Amino acid sequence: MDLNADLGEGFGSWRLGDDHALLDLISSANVACGFHAGDAATMHQVCAAAAERGVAVGAQVGYRDLAGFGRRHIAYDFAELRDETIYQLGALDAFCRLYRTRVRYLKPHGALYHAAARDEAQAAALVAAISGYDHELPVLCQPGSVLAQLATGAGLRVVAEGFADRNYLPNGTLVPRSSPDALVTDPEQVAVRAVRMAVEQTLVAVDGTVIACPVESICLHGDTPGAVRCAELVRAALIDAGVTLTPFA
Amino acid sequence: MDLNADLGEGFGSWRLGDDHALLDLISSANVACGFHAGDAATMHQVCAAAAERGVAVGAQVGYRDLAGFGRRHIAYDFAELRDETIYQLGALDAFCRLYRTRVRYLKPHGALYHAAARDEAQAAALVAAISGYDHELPVLCQPGSVLAQLATGAGLRVVAEGFADRNYLPNGTLVPRSSPDALVTDPEQVAVRAVRMAVEQTLVAVDGTVIACPVESICLHGDTPGAVRCAELVRAALIDAGVTLTPFA
Amino acid sequence: MDLNADLGEGFGSWRLGDDHALLDLISSANVACGFHAGDAATMHQVCAAAAERGVAVGAQVGYRDLAGFGRRHIAYDFAELRDETIYQLGALDAFCRLYRTRVRYLKPHGALYHAAARDEAQAAALVAAISGYDHELPVLCQPGSVLAQLATGAGLRVVAEGFADRNYLPNGTLVPRSSPDALVTDPEQVAVRAVRMAVEQTLVAVDGTVIACPVESICLHGDTPGAVRCAELVRAALIDAGVTLTPFA
Amino acid sequence: MDLNADLGEGFGSWRLGDDHALLDLISSANVACGFHAGDAATMHQVCAAAAERGVAVGAQVGYRDLAGFGRRHIAYDFAELRDETIYQLGALDAFCRLYRTRVRYLKPHGALYHAAARDEAQAAALVAAISGYDHELPVLCQPGSVLAQLATGAGLRVVAEGFADRNYLPNGTLVPRSSPDALVTDPEQVAVRAVRMAVEQTLVAVDGTVIACPVESICLHGDTPGAVRCAELVRAALIDAGVTLTPFA
Repeated sequence: MDLNADLGEGFGSWRLGDDHALLDLISSANVACGFHAGDAATMHQVCAAAAERGVAVGAQVGYRDLAGFGRRHIAYDFAELRDETIYQLGALDAFCRLYRTRVRYLKPHGALYHAAARDEAQAAALVAAISGYDHELPVLCQPGSVLAQLATGAGLRVVAEGFADRNYLPNGTLVPRSSPDALVTDPEQVAVRAVRMAVEQTLVAVDGTVIACPVESICLHGDTPGAVRCAELVRAALIDAGVTLTPFA
Repeated sequence: MDLNADLGEGFGSWRLGDDHALLDLISSANVACGFHAGDAATMHQVCAAAAERGVAVGAQVGYRDLAGFGRRHIAYDFAELRDETIYQLGALDAFCRLYRTRVRYLKPHGALYHAAARDEAQAAALVAAISGYDHELPVLCQPGSVLAQLATGAGLRVVAEGFADRNYLPNGTLVPRSSPDALVTDPEQVAVRAVRMAVEQTLVAVDGTVIACPVESICLHGDTPGAVRCAELVRAALIDAGVTLTPFA
Repeated sequence: MDLNADLGEGFGSWRLGDDHALLDLISSANVACGFHAGDAATMHQVCAAAAERGVAVGAQVGYRDLAGFGRRHIAYDFAELRDETIYQLGALDAFCRLYRTRVRYLKPHGALYHAAARDEAQAAALVAAISGYDHELPVLCQPGSVLAQLATGAGLRVVAEGFADRNYLPNGTLVPRSSPDALVTDPEQVAVRAVRMAVEQTLVAVDGTVIACPVESICLHGDTPGAVRCAELVRAALIDAGVTLTPFA
Repeated sequence: MDLNADLGEGFGSWRLGDDHALLDLISSANVACGFHAGDAATMHQVCAAAAERGVAVGAQVGYRDLAGFGRRHIAYDFAELRDETIYQLGALDAFCRLYRTRVRYLKPHGALYHAAARDEAQAAALVAAISGYDHELPVLCQPGSVLAQLATGAGLRVVAEGFADRNYLPNGTLVPRSSPDALVTDPEQVAVRAVRMAVEQTLVAVDGTVIACPVESICLHGDTPGAVRCAELVRAALIDAGVTLTPFA
């Protein structure tokens, strides 16, 4: 099983989350590429630290929207989004090459993550960017999303991720954030859910139904208070359960 | 002999210069990488058109200053400038890779060009970026500059460029832009000077002295009125004089 | 009757349209405020030139999206859009004050113009910004739009504008740009339509129906080839028809 | 005596310092205006909170350099810097007007603070901006600086500030930051120095000399660990010493 988290989400003098603590806990780092967050110095530092620890680096590509942290939907057209995705992939890859490694996967960020799950044009732009840049690059996304479908259709490797700290509906989709029970906030419970995902490939939906959850990676959130402690608990519980943590890529 | 010019210097809806006309006249395109000018869509288009014509693509790296078009000196520190240079190199390289080619050289833009000619820290940052990213990448710059010296010392290939449309002092440096005779404005004269640079590797300084000018590339300016016509004249004159125009890289 | 056009839409070294030619032809200048286009130096110059000619300055507020020129819809929330509108209003007003005048109206730009015509939250954000900043400030927009309705409801003055170079459907809305007959391209025809709008307050819809068109301002486009010549014809035709051109504000 | 601190220095999702804690301790807030830090939403919130507490709002104007937090010198020309200063002043003033107050002074930030202390063109640009925008607006700066001289010459009110947490040379200038004894790090000592500045208008230079320090405001730093506690100590010590804390403007 793989553990992924968003990293390198500061900009200039501003920091977000504790990159160094998380790098010791995860196996895959979704590194911001400078459009919604991240800058060259941060990308360099995260790539260096990830290479040292054997953590796989993925391109966390996002909308060009520092002020909105990539969390506002932008009506990009296909070619613009494809080209900005290629740009971000190349920029991050440059830092990986310094440490004799490479960008190992792509994961869209924020509003782009959600748009690519539903919107054909935006999903297709990501698929075109990966296909053009490096056809071997997997895409990390929600199972069943439009992005997953189009990427599969284009012959790309799709890696499904699950959220141990989010509640699910019985149909396998996430309880919307607007709902009061969207989040699982108790770290112990998050750890229990992560172990179930990893060992049994199932989860307990919000109504108690046990459903299949065939994921290759579990996403941890790094920018909330208590994020590091929660990640530590999840990691420890997985190791206790005999799960090997290793990058999917 | 090589002819180079700055290309891809628009941003979003804004255009600057006539990229397509120039691409038919030059052998090396200094492509803006998004920090002082340029965006992903423009970079993609220029790389595609350059690949089709066999024009070499170089990274025209600049300061992060869209509002100032990279023409204002910024007191970057070494690591920031190194990392932003690597970022720009990687981003442009991504578009070259789409067309089975690569960034073939680096040329600093505007205020960074001038800073790197005099300032050890900024020149060293460019050298460190190239050395880390791809030690085979030549740097296109003014002969005798601090950048040329440090790059040579680091084992990089240095390619000297001359300016057929600028007057020189007898010591081989440019007449400062503040001086009324800084520019050679008559296109016919520019062409004559270009031929002399290419064939005899000399130029006539502003006081009439003939001095050595051992350059591998001649820089043409693309953003002035009459730029395309001047480039046409220079190209035609060089070909008439039996000079072969080919990328240095 | 008032003639309005978008001005000051360059950024840094980039120019768009011929501000000085248009300033001699229009009575109201929609000046870009630095978010989708425009910068402090351009705003200063346009405000100075407008004040000299008695042209009213309006705030052409837009999304924070230089790369997309404000033409891509962004899912702003209410408070963000309200605050960025207030920011832009204040910034432009500062330059007007230098010339003992003031921002005289607000007109949303590009994708924000279209969003505010349909989307309650975005329209309400503009209304809240104007109400907070200066309740006397009129809003220039399409008659019948959600923005017009909310602004009227809030006690703001709403100024309706018409487009002499756009075809209309019989219901008074614009023929969508995706349609081949969206634009009226013949400048003579544009002038005839402008005179009809000004004198009879009617227009001929695309199916030949004559419909009411009670507008206080006619919008001219400044960034197309032939824009200045078209504006000259419209202005001359209106004056010939005895129409007085004067700012609505 | 006045206590000033930099506030509103976040951007988008990123925060810096504890604005709300500081607003209860200071009498003047230097609010970032969106160029080196700050955004419209933050400016709105800080202006609202400052108005509620009777804290004076000053425009903390800076270079257009979010990535560098305005801490890198940029070679602006006179007109660009004047116009960007007017833009920032107007933008911040718009939020003050919502709360029936006004921007009450200007203080340059970071590298612009240092440039304006030495560089005539940059200092003159700030003076021209204030003179044009509102001749009554005081400028808060270092006594003896070029900015102080030019502002005085232009008939502007100059307010001198001192740094209780910085060591001074016997000639009244600051010990450079590169020196190990640049900072006074013990909060108790900072408080003692602040009281001496306020009550006796003197300070003890790094060599033990007592020198005059005729300042109207003491600057506190808000973005260091322990900043709030240090500000609390300084405020309490000043009040204990019978000093009245009130905005200078």
